[in-house]
Amino acid sequence: MADDPQEPAAEPAKSPISAFSDPTYRTGVVELLGVLALGEITAFERLAEDAKMAPTMADKAELSSMATVEFGHYVSLRDRLVELGADPYAAMEPFEESFERFHRNTAPSDWLESLVKAYVGDGLAADFYREIATYLDPDTRELIMSALADSGQSEFAVERVRTAIEAEPRSGGRLALWGRRLMGEALSQAQLVAAEHDGLTAVLVGGADRPGMDLAGIGRMFARLTENHAKRMASLGLAS
Amino acid sequence: MADDPQEPAAEPAKSPISAFSDPTYRTGVVELLGVLALGEITAFERLAEDAKMAPTMADKAELSSMATVEFGHYVSLRDRLVELGADPYAAMEPFEESFERFHRNTAPSDWLESLVKAYVGDGLAADFYREIATYLDPDTRELIMSALADSGQSEFAVERVRTAIEAEPRSGGRLALWGRRLMGEALSQAQLVAAEHDGLTAVLVGGADRPGMDLAGIGRMFARLTENHAKRMASLGLAS
Repeated sequence: MADDPQEPAAEPAKSPISAFSDPTYRTGVVELLGVLALGEITAFERLAEDAKMAPTMADKAELSSMATVEFGHYVSLRDRLVELGADPYAAMEPFEESFERFHRNTAPSDWLESLVKAYVGDGLAADFYREIATYLDPDTRELIMSALADSGQSEFAVERVRTAIEAEPRSGGRLALWGRRLMGEALSQAQLVAAEHDGLTAVLVGGADRPGMDLAGIGRMFARLTENHAKRMASLGLAS
Repeated sequence: MADDPQEPAAEPAKSPISAFSDPTYRTGVVELLGVLALGEITAFERLAEDAKMAPTMADKAELSSMATVEFGHYVSLRDRLVELGADPYAAMEPFEESFERFHRNTAPSDWLESLVKAYVGDGLAADFYREIATYLDPDTRELIMSALADSGQSEFAVERVRTAIEAEPRSGGRLALWGRRLMGEALSQAQLVAAEHDGLTAVLVGGADRPGMDLAGIGRMFARLTENHAKRMASLGLAS
């Protein structure tokens, strides 16, 4: 990679009052909070569902606990939409199909696949939203950053997956493929979402008086996302 | 009913230190916390599962929110077991089959049945545990009481079910039968659990220096449980 993937992403965005006086910006933020909120409640559902595959009650409780953290994030995002005078359910609705498609195409077939998905998927989503957040007004940015705080269970997933691979090294190959499929599906769904929602894209590329990413910047962002994904796979003991 | 079902249940139990010096008492409390903790995490699972049947995203969020409240209760009960030096998973394990059987026999077939189950089942469990809690040391009692605090969503269930019955009065008959079935299953599972776990029963009936319920007291407790169940059914607009 020619560009440094660790470069800081952007200069701070403008104050909330002036930012929201731009209707394009407001629309974009409502779309963004809608997609985030739906992502969180969908993550809650999937983690609660995947918890059923847990081999022990302790493992089930860990995944369920991750699920409840995601639900808490959902609540703050939904409340923020209400504060902005938007209908939170109307804001989420346009993204339902994409999330459904993503989860249908990445339904884990066993407990280890669930863990990898929880860890890798959560990490990737968090990185992506953090990138976007740098272009937002300080209030929205702060809310998103706190909604993305690690649910604290990453260590659990890493430990469990590493132990499982040590016990049965052959599973490493299968899980590495699984990680690649998760990344591929996430990117292709993200692309579809961006293509269908101009408001979201407008937030990202900025406006006359708002900073944004140019095409090269978007390329560098993807380089950073890929690099962080590779680090997560490595911490699981998996090739990416 | 000859006896007043609203009678106060018992005189306060002894202090924690002397209570726990009785090994029978300690065993009983560990069993009790085990059954409560398992009940809460199972409730979390079922509510998260039933939330999928919600007709709208707002409804789904309400049931998911009830689920996360149950999970929080689970965490405090589990932590208390650890404090008492017990293995929380070993304490829960003996009750897994009963809860599985209960939920298998009462799997809601639609959204309204889910709501009735959430409201009626939660209320019944809370009443029962509250009855038992009066025979416990103050610390354990306080923990149980706070774990049983209403998840605050009862109003939601009541409102939704009443509205649905007004819109389609015929569904009232079906839901009334459903409520009776829930009560019947709960009582028969509770009976099995009590019969199989002497420690639990010992807490209830007391000991040489601990107050407890005699047979007549147990009868009156069931009268109170049934009466409260009927009140909940009535608040849903259903015959019991």
